[in-house]
Amino acid sequence: MRRIDGRAIAATITAEVTAAVATASVPPTLAVLVPTRDEATAWYVRSIERAARKVGIACRVVQLEEPSRQDVVDRLADLSADPSVHGVICQTPLPDGVALDDVGAFIDPRKDVDGANPESLGRVAAGLSGFAPATAVAVLEVLRHEGVPLAGTRAVVVGRSTVVGKPAALLLLAADATVTVCHSRTADLPAVTREADVLVVAVGRAGFVGAEHVKPGAVVVDVGTNPAADGSLVGDVRPDVAGVAGALTPVPGGVGPVTTAVLLKHTAQAARGL
Amino acid sequence: MRRIDGRAIAATITAEVTAAVATASVPPTLAVLVPTRDEATAWYVRSIERAARKVGIACRVVQLEEPSRQDVVDRLADLSADPSVHGVICQTPLPDGVALDDVGAFIDPRKDVDGANPESLGRVAAGLSGFAPATAVAVLEVLRHEGVPLAGTRAVVVGRSTVVGKPAALLLLAADATVTVCHSRTADLPAVTREADVLVVAVGRAGFVGAEHVKPGAVVVDVGTNPAADGSLVGDVRPDVAGVAGALTPVPGGVGPVTTAVLLKHTAQAARGL
Repeated sequence: MRRIDGRAIAATITAEVTAAVATASVPPTLAVLVPTRDEATAWYVRSIERAARKVGIACRVVQLEEPSRQDVVDRLADLSADPSVHGVICQTPLPDGVALDDVGAFIDPRKDVDGANPESLGRVAAGLSGFAPATAVAVLEVLRHEGVPLAGTRAVVVGRSTVVGKPAALLLLAADATVTVCHSRTADLPAVTREADVLVVAVGRAGFVGAEHVKPGAVVVDVGTNPAADGSLVGDVRPDVAGVAGALTPVPGGVGPVTTAVLLKHTAQAARGL
Repeated sequence: MRRIDGRAIAATITAEVTAAVATASVPPTLAVLVPTRDEATAWYVRSIERAARKVGIACRVVQLEEPSRQDVVDRLADLSADPSVHGVICQTPLPDGVALDDVGAFIDPRKDVDGANPESLGRVAAGLSGFAPATAVAVLEVLRHEGVPLAGTRAVVVGRSTVVGKPAALLLLAADATVTVCHSRTADLPAVTREADVLVVAVGRAGFVGAEHVKPGAVVVDVGTNPAADGSLVGDVRPDVAGVAGALTPVPGGVGPVTTAVLLKHTAQAARGL
């Protein structure tokens, strides 16, 4: 069983981003809107700031205090209109009653580096230029960097969220995989997931997928990041999967660092007008 | 084997639309942009006009002569901005070098009754209000009217086009089916399609799917409309499927008439601001 090194993949991507940014006339700027005070969010935003600084991307963190929906919308629209800002992301959690796919529609698709605008998702689905959510792109980057063949293989995605499951399925489809999407209503889930050559698990429940769900030799990508009782992070995949899978992304150190690298890559692309 | 009567389903839908339109303060208006002279398109537009008239929807056909991309964009934007127009569709084929998902972005999503704007597809994917392409919705209407259970069943879509395969897959997923999308690169297609309780075929190749692709008792929805040598229309599904399937939509008289009915239903909804 190969343990996939997400940090190494992230390092490869960020090296490419650093090289691209070094030739830019102005440093790309990523604006991070933080609409709530939340410890995990603050920790993640600091990690984005550190990673951005390393590759030469400026990070502008905008902290809001108990904003209304209109406050969030106005700030996202302002940042989208600001020519000195190249990428705009909106952190979750949002205040009660505010939904990301509602306010996300106010991020200019050309600056929507975490694919929060439904228009971005539609453009990705239609095969047009546009940014898919960074986590979904990170799944594909992991598979590409590992040299996992996708064309004609069976890929199964467990989870149908707008931020991971659905865009990951669309990207796998664009990569010519035969794609199945499973969810809470799927009958006999282990039988369906055992069809997978590539199994992507994005459910958000610790240890949801075990060895009985995995075809021997399959590549398993664990997108889950669930807080454990001891404060550590655990994935959606149980340790016994390591005895069956051909390759597996760990948590932490798998999809997570690649997601941050993709966010920076998208920001550099947005700054170049891609 | 049950032969599904698309015309009867269309009649049920148009009866509902007629009742809804009868209570409207102004008759809903559907604008149909026709960017090329094409005999099949002209025939189809006349059939939309007839069907619209029957339910009390006004149809405004705008025929263009050898338009540029900008001409098409301008007319779609004008029709979108016109308060007396409630639904806007753009017929294909388009002039050489003009793509529907490019010009479709200029149809206001609130009037995009055939889901040609990538933003509409994204909104449907995100579970927000928005119109999916009428053909994809027609597939779901057929299944709903036939009382086919979808939650927890295996649905397989053959074909991954932006106008049918992908939106149909997203709608089946929203209906809680476990959805697999197959395409030209799928390995061992008959083995994958035989997993389907519901098989949707939208490939655009006459007789592409035969009895060997179908699980006994499956419901098969044939979206294909391929011109035969004698001028008639034939589907993507071969006649021998009737010996295996539990139910099958014919061509013609299956998904086709339901698609027109859905277009009118969407126009009535758009006029009511849904």
